[in-house]
Amino acid sequence: MTDHPQAPPAPQPRQTYLASAGTALPGDPVDNAALAKALGVNEEWIEVFIGTKTRHFARDLATGTVRWSLADLCAQAAERALAAGGTDPSEIEFIVLGTATPDTLMPATVNHVADRLGLDHVPTFQLQSGCAGAVQALSVARTMVASGEHRTGLVIGGDVCSKHLDLQRDLSSAAPSDLVNFVLFGDGAGAAVITDEPRGAGVALRRTLNRFTGLGRAPGQVIEWFGLADRHDDRQAVTEDYKAIEEAVPVMAVEILWELLDDLEWSADRLDYLLPPQLSGRMTRRITEQLDVPGAREISCVADTGNNGNALPFLQLEQLLTRMSAGERALAVAIESSKWIKAGFALEKI
Amino acid sequence: MTDHPQAPPAPQPRQTYLASAGTALPGDPVDNAALAKALGVNEEWIEVFIGTKTRHFARDLATGTVRWSLADLCAQAAERALAAGGTDPSEIEFIVLGTATPDTLMPATVNHVADRLGLDHVPTFQLQSGCAGAVQALSVARTMVASGEHRTGLVIGGDVCSKHLDLQRDLSSAAPSDLVNFVLFGDGAGAAVITDEPRGAGVALRRTLNRFTGLGRAPGQVIEWFGLADRHDDRQAVTEDYKAIEEAVPVMAVEILWELLDDLEWSADRLDYLLPPQLSGRMTRRITEQLDVPGAREISCVADTGNNGNALPFLQLEQLLTRMSAGERALAVAIESSKWIKAGFALEKI
Repeated sequence: MTDHPQAPPAPQPRQTYLASAGTALPGDPVDNAALAKALGVNEEWIEVFIGTKTRHFARDLATGTVRWSLADLCAQAAERALAAGGTDPSEIEFIVLGTATPDTLMPATVNHVADRLGLDHVPTFQLQSGCAGAVQALSVARTMVASGEHRTGLVIGGDVCSKHLDLQRDLSSAAPSDLVNFVLFGDGAGAAVITDEPRGAGVALRRTLNRFTGLGRAPGQVIEWFGLADRHDDRQAVTEDYKAIEEAVPVMAVEILWELLDDLEWSADRLDYLLPPQLSGRMTRRITEQLDVPGAREISCVADTGNNGNALPFLQLEQLLTRMSAGERALAVAIESSKWIKAGFALEKI
Repeated sequence: MTDHPQAPPAPQPRQTYLASAGTALPGDPVDNAALAKALGVNEEWIEVFIGTKTRHFARDLATGTVRWSLADLCAQAAERALAAGGTDPSEIEFIVLGTATPDTLMPATVNHVADRLGLDHVPTFQLQSGCAGAVQALSVARTMVASGEHRTGLVIGGDVCSKHLDLQRDLSSAAPSDLVNFVLFGDGAGAAVITDEPRGAGVALRRTLNRFTGLGRAPGQVIEWFGLADRHDDRQAVTEDYKAIEEAVPVMAVEILWELLDDLEWSADRLDYLLPPQLSGRMTRRITEQLDVPGAREISCVADTGNNGNALPFLQLEQLLTRMSAGERALAVAIESSKWIKAGFALEKI
């Protein structure tokens, strides 16, 4: 620690609460048979290797038409979160959105969401991030309320991977490491209302953890975008080091769990709910085994929703908030394998 | 205002300070003669219509080769900001980066910057935004320090528009509204160190303003990205409603100036420096006239650097911090015309 002799004593951050959550998944679930047929890949391979049963797409698989934008899904999720907590949109003092797949580079999608919700004259923030983005958004929102400068805000996470779902491509001879990027993902959005007092579900947000841990490590996942000057390049947009992810993520998940428990002085035995990282049905099962908190009820969704990135923690939260009873505790663990970000949060029902 | 009867009294946010700033511009300045030649457009038109004399590009105009990534420029600017304030990288507790043009969608560029700086185990945030992004980054960083949870952080802004600089395109018959997008922009990055005590330049960050004001208004500027599925589309990536920008931005700039002055109870006569919005040489001259604070010294850079988006406020800050004397006051005004964001900040040297 550095010595800061002149600094005044730090203020006491204010406790924050989650009042409600809401989510939006586009269209009907697409099962493995339908996905295998649309992409020309093997259905059984998806079941065994990915372990995800269904997912939702903003793009129509048959025609390629984009039916929902990220702004559409985020606005719908936000409206549901507001309604679920009985929060009037006029109470919302700021919006923070986490996404890896903005509709455009400018305007940031969060501003279209504000417009749809009828909000004006509020600060808006959009965080560019993958699986850690939802936690980063929660973290920024928590700090804005904890600082005493705001009382009620909207936190949103969502992803629409449609722009990378190339239905023209022949995948019949693609390598598994390439194929995985076509069958892992889904689209969706979720939102939560954060407050400075217990309202609605009245669940205290005890901690958020968001920490870059990628010093000197190669990225586990890269997702590119194309501009005018390079859009005719033939390279793939999504590349993954699946082996590195399989090796590193379970270890990181265990570290995050224990760091949060230690920091809160919580006993693992007293944990009521566990929200494990949602990579794929198969990976999430493996990670949950290694987390080894048998007394905590698992809340997962990825096997039904696919990996829809920043939506995932909100899909878990929506289930959690309606289930928690007074005094119960929950821990969420999230990992972004892109440049290795540890993330998580801790909740306690008042 | 809503009634929140149960909420405890709000904590007093801690005062924050800017210790230093640093910037990075790629390569040699490109003058209007060179730009006109490379794009096949009229040099005089650039001078009269845009009023920008030079800009810097991360891409080599002759060969099209990308020579600097956004991460390269941001890391360089951050190193210079750290050095300028005598801050050791180990003191940095978090990084916030604002950009409209991330190198990739994942990993967020801020994580590559952390890696370059040798930082690990720190929270990183990357805000997706245009001209307001630098102020949003300052605002998030300010709140993180003001909350009492962090003491020293790094705020960065930068943009590399190279992916949209299509040197293959024949612009000889392009309409002015399209041409403007090829001659307005530049590339660059800037950074500042934010602290909880006066250090280095010791300039107090009295206010940040960041407010969406686009309810029901069409975007003034849209910048798209292309994915695998739509990268062969022939549409342009950058579209602007230049008329709407010319009309709305000067009015908004005046409103921001007076809102900040009123909020701080500062007299316009006592303002020592003005950092006006940096759209283009011509637009910035017009806006500065309308802001009409003749007693304040103007700090502008766009005529020399081009509009390099999130780098601009840091380019202005770098000049400002070395010039300010004890007791002096400065106001910065920034406007994002994408979906109409008002932004600004107020500084006072201790």
